[in-house]
Amino acid sequence: MESCFLVSISFLLLLVSSFDRGLTNFSFAVNPCCYYPCQNAGVCVRFGTDQYQCDCTGTGFYGDNCTVPEFWTKVYILFKPSPAVVHFILTNFHWFWGLVNNSLLQDIFMRFVLTVRINLVPDIPTYNTKYGYLNWESYYNISYYTRLLPPVPEDCPLPMGTKGKAVLPDPDVLLEKFFKRRVFKPDPQGTNLMFAFMAQHFTHQFFKTHPGVGGGFTKALGHGVDGSHIYGDNLMRQFQLRQQKDGKLKYQLINGEMYPPTVSNVPVDMRYPPTIPPEHRLAIGNELFGLVPGLSMYATIWLREHNRLCDILKEEHPTWDDEQLFQTARLIVIGETIKIIIEEYVQHLSGYLFKLKFDPSLLFKEQFHYSNRIAVEFVHLYHWHSLMPDSFLIDGDDVPYSQFLHNNSLLIHYGVEKLVDSFSRQPAGQIGGGQNFNEHILGVIKSLFRESRADRLRPFNEYRKKFDLKPYSSFSELTDNVEIARDLEELYGDIDALEFYPGLILEKTHSNSIFGESMVEMGSPFSLKGLFGNPICSPEYWKPSTFGGETGFNIVKTATLRKLVCLNTKWCPYVSFNVPRDEDEPKPKNEL
Amino acid sequence: MESCFLVSISFLLLLVSSFDRGLTNFSFAVNPCCYYPCQNAGVCVRFGTDQYQCDCTGTGFYGDNCTVPEFWTKVYILFKPSPAVVHFILTNFHWFWGLVNNSLLQDIFMRFVLTVRINLVPDIPTYNTKYGYLNWESYYNISYYTRLLPPVPEDCPLPMGTKGKAVLPDPDVLLEKFFKRRVFKPDPQGTNLMFAFMAQHFTHQFFKTHPGVGGGFTKALGHGVDGSHIYGDNLMRQFQLRQQKDGKLKYQLINGEMYPPTVSNVPVDMRYPPTIPPEHRLAIGNELFGLVPGLSMYATIWLREHNRLCDILKEEHPTWDDEQLFQTARLIVIGETIKIIIEEYVQHLSGYLFKLKFDPSLLFKEQFHYSNRIAVEFVHLYHWHSLMPDSFLIDGDDVPYSQFLHNNSLLIHYGVEKLVDSFSRQPAGQIGGGQNFNEHILGVIKSLFRESRADRLRPFNEYRKKFDLKPYSSFSELTDNVEIARDLEELYGDIDALEFYPGLILEKTHSNSIFGESMVEMGSPFSLKGLFGNPICSPEYWKPSTFGGETGFNIVKTATLRKLVCLNTKWCPYVSFNVPRDEDEPKPKNEL
Repeated sequence: MESCFLVSISFLLLLVSSFDRGLTNFSFAVNPCCYYPCQNAGVCVRFGTDQYQCDCTGTGFYGDNCTVPEFWTKVYILFKPSPAVVHFILTNFHWFWGLVNNSLLQDIFMRFVLTVRINLVPDIPTYNTKYGYLNWESYYNISYYTRLLPPVPEDCPLPMGTKGKAVLPDPDVLLEKFFKRRVFKPDPQGTNLMFAFMAQHFTHQFFKTHPGVGGGFTKALGHGVDGSHIYGDNLMRQFQLRQQKDGKLKYQLINGEMYPPTVSNVPVDMRYPPTIPPEHRLAIGNELFGLVPGLSMYATIWLREHNRLCDILKEEHPTWDDEQLFQTARLIVIGETIKIIIEEYVQHLSGYLFKLKFDPSLLFKEQFHYSNRIAVEFVHLYHWHSLMPDSFLIDGDDVPYSQFLHNNSLLIHYGVEKLVDSFSRQPAGQIGGGQNFNEHILGVIKSLFRESRADRLRPFNEYRKKFDLKPYSSFSELTDNVEIARDLEELYGDIDALEFYPGLILEKTHSNSIFGESMVEMGSPFSLKGLFGNPICSPEYWKPSTFGGETGFNIVKTATLRKLVCLNTKWCPYVSFNVPRDEDEPKPKNEL
Repeated sequence: MESCFLVSISFLLLLVSSFDRGLTNFSFAVNPCCYYPCQNAGVCVRFGTDQYQCDCTGTGFYGDNCTVPEFWTKVYILFKPSPAVVHFILTNFHWFWGLVNNSLLQDIFMRFVLTVRINLVPDIPTYNTKYGYLNWESYYNISYYTRLLPPVPEDCPLPMGTKGKAVLPDPDVLLEKFFKRRVFKPDPQGTNLMFAFMAQHFTHQFFKTHPGVGGGFTKALGHGVDGSHIYGDNLMRQFQLRQQKDGKLKYQLINGEMYPPTVSNVPVDMRYPPTIPPEHRLAIGNELFGLVPGLSMYATIWLREHNRLCDILKEEHPTWDDEQLFQTARLIVIGETIKIIIEEYVQHLSGYLFKLKFDPSLLFKEQFHYSNRIAVEFVHLYHWHSLMPDSFLIDGDDVPYSQFLHNNSLLIHYGVEKLVDSFSRQPAGQIGGGQNFNEHILGVIKSLFRESRADRLRPFNEYRKKFDLKPYSSFSELTDNVEIARDLEELYGDIDALEFYPGLILEKTHSNSIFGESMVEMGSPFSLKGLFGNPICSPEYWKPSTFGGETGFNIVKTATLRKLVCLNTKWCPYVSFNVPRDEDEPKPKNEL
């Protein structure tokens, strides 16, 4: 009787809170899927008005709520080390990893890392922001970002389902309490601005939330590393950016050095404040890349690299037309990008002593699907704006935001070499831990909250479960910062109602790490699936002829950040994703 | 010296023939890839002006022209039975297949058939009609049909490369000699018109060559079984065809029976001659499906089935909105389609005693890629217009083409039951062997020749090689018909210059088979990859919840042509893809 009484009470409360929210279609039965009853990635389907069934197919579990492990699942759970243990092993034992990295064990470990990580994201797209169930439209329509978990059902009594407060916290309060930087906290892993601008430049080829259409839609229909930030995201833009000769992109020469052309000569849409005249607007693949000189610097480097590749290809293939030179150079650029991102960028980020390896053939015998669809959750997760410093130190000058934003004259004035050198030496902010976002950037995070609520993203703990992580039982388990834990508790009311993004940022970081466990465990599957899921990694494409022969194939297979910069500059600056350590002094150009 | 002399002579001949063709950009070096030097699916890349390299990666062969087998390739070749032997085994030994079909061996054989067949088409798209080399655009742009072999290079001295005549035969001559029907040759496998119209209805959801843009482009961006012929190939058309209530499609009732609405009420574009008034034009997903009553009959059946499924789903899920009912019914329709196509349509076509099985889980442990891109070669291959008879026998009436085309009143007058019964009883023509195309249909084949030449399709023998078949050494090896062999020799000059489509149609047929070896060996990989590559067959989708629960999942898993018809008609006609044999008399409706 007591339990019956409880049910009635809670039912009444739900009823009241729902009326509070002004629901017009209020039905007396709460959608049972709002309780997220299905565990271990089981799928909740509502039957009748107040019934549900969990579809446990393929989860390795059974039972009403997919909670009972099958035999092999039990064995797996028994032997699976915790992410914390794995991270500890990967970041310690120098002698062991020294052995592994220089032997065939490297391949075995790399294949293992890839398969374990990639299995966490679906092979083919599933839900999206409109559709909380599988259907042809969400599979087929590539204008949608996909998503791993369906939205919180529209008819749930509370914004995060059935737990937490009736109204989510005011974003301004969240920004002020948890995100705004008090004092610059440099990343303990030594990340620099060269990394930060690479992150921004690289990811905005596939993160292009459609302006005005809402968070669920993207303009980047390539859904991965396609070079669209260099070549444009549509054929008309590509046509305008191309020379139509020898495969090359258009450029301008300043003091004998190659830069992107200006909008005066190549009239593509570039977003600048009206105060910037056309002759100071550079024409770049991505229309937003006039935002900071860090982006136009990378755009300049890749422009030079593309045109350099065209020269190399034409030398070997004098009969090839403009189109074949262009398209083949583009595939090499895509290959170089993936190589650098995996072996230098992700390597740096991971902090692993294990040396990551870009070798697509590692997956040729695995069940792996060469395709990718960018997920809303990946877009949200990748808001790493705390990397940005409070001002920019270039060649001894201290440049504030006001002079940095939309100011291409910095690029032209200092040149690529000095920018690379300066950005490589300046520390970036720590991503995780909270309270490390420069105030110029807080607006982006505010928009993110607006989007995540419009997109009805499920609670942080639901995502923890989806990625095989134990859900947090309290805010003080999430973070060691007592004040943050207390304020979160007060604002959200329940750890199971905490939103996705604040969970990722405010989670305690591993010792000396750039961010916490969840960012690593959720970010790497998306990242590795996107990188290795590229068509150039498939057995059909991963061969010399795809890149014009052995020459092009070798350029891909031996690409480094250092080569990318120094084969396209007059002198070779200090170039790295790390601030210099003692041993990191610049090497002469002939040691590439 | 003699060989040198020969080279000079042939060079001179090439020079002359090239000038004959009025090439303006004539270069003195012939593109060496025009000789198709790379064997065993090696990729030819031109270097310098007169050099080439074969990329043998992943072929199992090495050497300059990828002709030397690696050890395991040798073993494979040694033990691989010829397609003729396999076909013989599969179409004989009743007792053996009786055992297999009713045991676990069925799964093992089916998995084997699938993996062997599907390995012959690339996992992800490669070339297309614009691009004879791999590149991002041909991978990414789904407006293109893909293709298995690159086009004949533009700069080759002869239309088919370096062999054959300087000018390809006049299509009118080809039609007259090889395609036009002398006397109706019924298909020896017993194929009927119910099959023929299924072929037409089913394939035109993914064969939609873009009118006016050329053979290389498609309007069917789903590239597989997506139901776009029922729901429209774009969202606007779908919106117009839907009731926006209970998930259902719009319909009209005639004598209490459901038919597609007319264009007067649902103003979607339907292609009819101007003489047909709007109130006689039925509004159907595919704009061309007013062509024959066979198509509008299938459209009616699927319309009824979709709406029937919506009722079933709503019964179990009263809270679902219009969209969820629609989308889930659509996935069930896709599933039913694939089930019927594999277990009845392909089964019938194969003539195999081995019973094919639609069970996607057979591939869950294989390296299989859930995606599909329709190939130009598949479109060409599927021109099975010789299925069409010389007139249509409906309920005792003999209807000529003039009264059959664009005449929906036949559907309304006779009703679905009588049309199904009549079409199931009337034999279709044999597809292969030649000289079996009704004259009303020859225009389609003429267009096909125009397209295949504009698309620069490679010779039939090159496709034989691509599909692991021995190229024919002479026209008399291709066909036993002496007259046809002689005429082909005269018109093409060289078996290695024979075009793709005439090769497929004129090849000798297996005894009592509907077509020859090449149609089977090239058609089935495309077909099976398309059917099993559907997202609903992936582990993420193939589960009850995807189809609304066990009810919908079971509908998919037990779908038959007979159920499809008889659950949507007042009485159950004779319904089959076979003309009746003695044992095939109609069963009462309660035996579904």
